Amino acid sequence: MDGMLVIISGPSGSGKGTVVKQLRPEDGYALSISVTTRKPREGETDGRDYFFTSEENFHKMREEHDLLEHAVYVGNYYGTPRKYVEEQIQKGKIVVLEIEVYGALQVKEKFPSAVLIFLMPPTLPELAARLTKRGTEDAVTIEARLKKTLEEVPLIDSYNYVVINDVIPDAVAKIDAIVLAERMKPFRAVEKIKQFTDSQKEIIC
Amino acid sequence: MDGMLVIISGPSGSGKGTVVKQLRPEDGYALSISVTTRKPREGETDGRDYFFTSEENFHKMREEHDLLEHAVYVGNYYGTPRKYVEEQIQKGKIVVLEIEVYGALQVKEKFPSAVLIFLMPPTLPELAARLTKRGTEDAVTIEARLKKTLEEVPLIDSYNYVVINDVIPDAVAKIDAIVLAERMKPFRAVEKIKQFTDSQKEIIC
Repeated sequence: MDGMLVIISGPSGSGKGTVVKQLRPEDGYALSISVTTRKPREGETDGRDYFFTSEENFHKMREEHDLLEHAVYVGNYYGTPRKYVEEQIQKGKIVVLEIEVYGALQVKEKFPSAVLIFLMPPTLPELAARLTKRGTEDAVTIEARLKKTLEEVPLIDSYNYVVINDVIPDAVAKIDAIVLAERMKPFRAVEKIKQFTDSQKEIIC
Repeated sequence: MDGMLVIISGPSGSGKGTVVKQLRPEDGYALSISVTTRKPREGETDGRDYFFTSEENFHKMREEHDLLEHAVYVGNYYGTPRKYVEEQIQKGKIVVLEIEVYGALQVKEKFPSAVLIFLMPPTLPELAARLTKRGTEDAVTIEARLKKTLEEVPLIDSYNYVVINDVIPDAVAKIDAIVLAERMKPFRAVEKIKQFTDSQKEIIC
């Protein structure tokens, strides 16, 4: 099967994490692994949870364009290593990258064949309810998040697909359909088309 | 649901007709109806099998750009009426047009939002076997068809999708997935995105 990079993006509270967890590895999905300068926590394994690296090496990777995107969070650097993504695609994997909206657009620019999916909560009141239920943020922060979400909506035009995340299994089924359809794009089906053309050797002498 | 025009095209013997017959009306599929100058045969109903019309009116439609494509066959004119296709799409239907390769490209040019699917037999020997089994054509004609098929393959690049028609139900499922994915393209999801943006009225006063 042909591999590809699928970016699951969308506003905070759209359910990216939950949906990504439901994509089945037996269907060929494999999570992208971030490189970070943060120290490993107990139980974390290099090459499974993260690729742990030095600040020096991180900046070297960035300079050598080996990061599809990068960001700083609480004094540590995080990035998406291009090489790992490409290796997994070569193996036929559907590499899944879960990332916020601006990071996603950054990756798409550096990796144009990536399939960019905007996960959207059904309505803003529903999004507000989800964020409130989560209980990790106060009312002011939630209002700021809703405002940010509205600012992100016009960016949907730069995405390949928009999936309304109403019911989780439906959203997962929609992503499966997107992957199936993308595999039938002519530029991804080059090998199959070649096999067809080559099959003339079996009949025309 | 949002309607769209889906063009099922491909070489003779690719199984276009068989696949199109399996697309379920309950899933929203509706066949495109051709306009023709041919006289109705017994049992044929105007507006169901064909739109029957005069040569004069046919040429008028062509001049007024109301035909997405047209062709002559055994002295009669046949064409795809734009108005009917647009009306069905307005109703939310997935209008299915089964047509040969050059006709398909003609339609795509006049109707850019159409989803162009190239149905391809798995191999040329398989295509040869299908055409032979059909028993309507002699060996010379079949060889000419195979040659024509090979000429059509490079045109796949102008298509949106290529579906290998190996097993009929699989091909149907792939077309269903394409339609589902296409419905999530941002330009087709404008109404849903607007509903989301409008939902702010429910919480922000």
